[in-house]
Amino acid sequence: MRDVAVIGVGMTPFGKFLSTPLKDLGRAAVWDAIQDAKVSPRDIQTAYVGNACLGAITGQYMVLGQIMLKEAGIRGIPITNVENACASGSSAFREAWISVASGMYDVALAVGAEKLYASDTRLSTKALAGATEVEYEGDIGLTMPGHWALRAKRFMEKYGTTAEQLAKVSVKNHRNGCLNPRSQHRREVTVEEVLNSRMVADPLTLLSCNPLGDGAAAAILVSKEVAARYTSKPIWVVASALTTGGYEPDREVARNQVEARAGKQAFEMAGIGPEDLDLAEVHDCFTIAEFMRVEGLGLVPEGEYGKWLDEGWSELGGKLPINASGGLLAKGHPVGATGVAQVAEVVWQLRGEAGERQVAGAKTGLVHCSGGGVASDTPVCCVHILKK
Amino acid sequence: MRDVAVIGVGMTPFGKFLSTPLKDLGRAAVWDAIQDAKVSPRDIQTAYVGNACLGAITGQYMVLGQIMLKEAGIRGIPITNVENACASGSSAFREAWISVASGMYDVALAVGAEKLYASDTRLSTKALAGATEVEYEGDIGLTMPGHWALRAKRFMEKYGTTAEQLAKVSVKNHRNGCLNPRSQHRREVTVEEVLNSRMVADPLTLLSCNPLGDGAAAAILVSKEVAARYTSKPIWVVASALTTGGYEPDREVARNQVEARAGKQAFEMAGIGPEDLDLAEVHDCFTIAEFMRVEGLGLVPEGEYGKWLDEGWSELGGKLPINASGGLLAKGHPVGATGVAQVAEVVWQLRGEAGERQVAGAKTGLVHCSGGGVASDTPVCCVHILKK
Repeated sequence: MRDVAVIGVGMTPFGKFLSTPLKDLGRAAVWDAIQDAKVSPRDIQTAYVGNACLGAITGQYMVLGQIMLKEAGIRGIPITNVENACASGSSAFREAWISVASGMYDVALAVGAEKLYASDTRLSTKALAGATEVEYEGDIGLTMPGHWALRAKRFMEKYGTTAEQLAKVSVKNHRNGCLNPRSQHRREVTVEEVLNSRMVADPLTLLSCNPLGDGAAAAILVSKEVAARYTSKPIWVVASALTTGGYEPDREVARNQVEARAGKQAFEMAGIGPEDLDLAEVHDCFTIAEFMRVEGLGLVPEGEYGKWLDEGWSELGGKLPINASGGLLAKGHPVGATGVAQVAEVVWQLRGEAGERQVAGAKTGLVHCSGGGVASDTPVCCVHILKK
Repeated sequence: MRDVAVIGVGMTPFGKFLSTPLKDLGRAAVWDAIQDAKVSPRDIQTAYVGNACLGAITGQYMVLGQIMLKEAGIRGIPITNVENACASGSSAFREAWISVASGMYDVALAVGAEKLYASDTRLSTKALAGATEVEYEGDIGLTMPGHWALRAKRFMEKYGTTAEQLAKVSVKNHRNGCLNPRSQHRREVTVEEVLNSRMVADPLTLLSCNPLGDGAAAAILVSKEVAARYTSKPIWVVASALTTGGYEPDREVARNQVEARAGKQAFEMAGIGPEDLDLAEVHDCFTIAEFMRVEGLGLVPEGEYGKWLDEGWSELGGKLPINASGGLLAKGHPVGATGVAQVAEVVWQLRGEAGERQVAGAKTGLVHCSGGGVASDTPVCCVHILKK
């Protein structure tokens, strides 16, 4: 396996773009990445496109990647569409990484793209429920907010976490989102506002849940052999781990062992530990998810994130800023786009190009996406570690 | 890149299994492949699952692979869902091949699975229309039969091909299907029956079109380093090519240049020519498709397949049997399953295990899938060459 660098990233603002076709969002992100990488589109040898819900929203069940990249002027090359629920973008990035690390290609493109807004919001809800095991969960109404509400209740009971502590994740991430020009939400919220916003699934209020959103992101990956041709600031992919829910004899809805395994694999592959990270983008689809995932990945001891949040540990300026971009809660979560957008954020941070939300001196960052809900197992968890 | 062998394949019968969940079909195919390969499920290190339409039919838009393999007892490993329209299974097989060829994994699983039958057939039609560019083609009613009917008309005009010659593809493939216990259709048809069956889209009659079908297929791929541990009959993957519609200045609906490029790449990679093949499974979704693809791949000179068919060249017992399995027209075409089922057929043939439809002394076989219709470009074409 060869060393692989990210040499260019691009991202549309996330938000509500009801009348913009997804291929146009994708094209914009791809061209951002192409210009950032200073590659010619003709240099791109293979592409992977992550998307989860377009079929449900528009009836375009197939060949999104081919249609989108044709619009972007990229044709004739191998293009493969990848879906792994909320980790669809991460998985597209991982396949692009494998295709270059393998020695097969020197220049690969990863795209994540999603349109969740529909003229009828019930379509969006139905699409997202398709990440559960429909036969057992979706059909009894256990959609994602319900799923995470159950976990939150159990987590709070088990570890003594308070509603105020959960709310602080939303407060922190909204504060960070104000500093990100591509963030869907750019306003500060208080603990009181989070707690008093409309109840979605007890204990998760509206401001405890990520918003529906549309958007796209892209990244260009190259082999070490050709990186110097394009950039003096390569960002290296030093670890890639993908896991699925396993045989967990002590299965517990308040703990995700899938994150523990993915984190362990990624840290071993990178040859570093959590203490070596300067920032992490962690899949905060709900406030409780940031708790369970930060702990699951081993960034914080089990049951202690509430206390660490109280002490400002994961704030911008804290020991390990989590979701400096605004995270899913503020920046938004167009499902298939998220994994690649997280990579874009960490690339900007490691290059020192993150503007007002810059993590000073960042050299190493982790990106994490998990997806799907299947009877308390998390079907997919994908972790990458990037280094300057 | 390392040498990669297929050491086990499995396949359900194709047909109408309205009350069988897709995960059960997938599990059956996976367990067939596991038993055929004599691997333990615990030996499998990574998996790719191809599917195109399940979301449209059942609302399970995401994580099919994870749900299906959980049912098969395979958990904890990286699993990635892949969609490339009718080449979804082929693309899953290709990603599994890359993952082993790269040196990353020694044992990989590729699965293709599809359920097209729905209690309301309009759902099936809507799903399949999702392989066109919905905004331009699907929405004006240009679904797949219409798309191929236009091509057939132009092809017949350009090359003087007759309706009788088109019908002979269906006659040949139905005859082969009678010899395949897993074939959806197992009855012979005559040229007259094909021509007189109900018109679907002029000139394509019902028996000129592949049937709706459900089914699954699986293959286990390993590195050369471990192949001998499992089998004395490895089948080598000597070429894998994936292309998309490109910049064709002389675009012509009666010729697919995407096949020409994929074929050329695959033959170069294998270091052989069409004359070295003993059989080929070619994506005959409609009778006309076998013409265009056999010619596009360079197996037959442009415009001459009609004559070669008349002479029995592609029959079982002919110079190059095409679709000995029965092809999509008789064996069936559960979209995402097809590419892996084609691999299974060629593996059985090269091992000498194809029973009544055995191609005597077969040593080298080609599998081909193409998918999607986007304004006369074919978005995806995937070719593999297998060798004993």
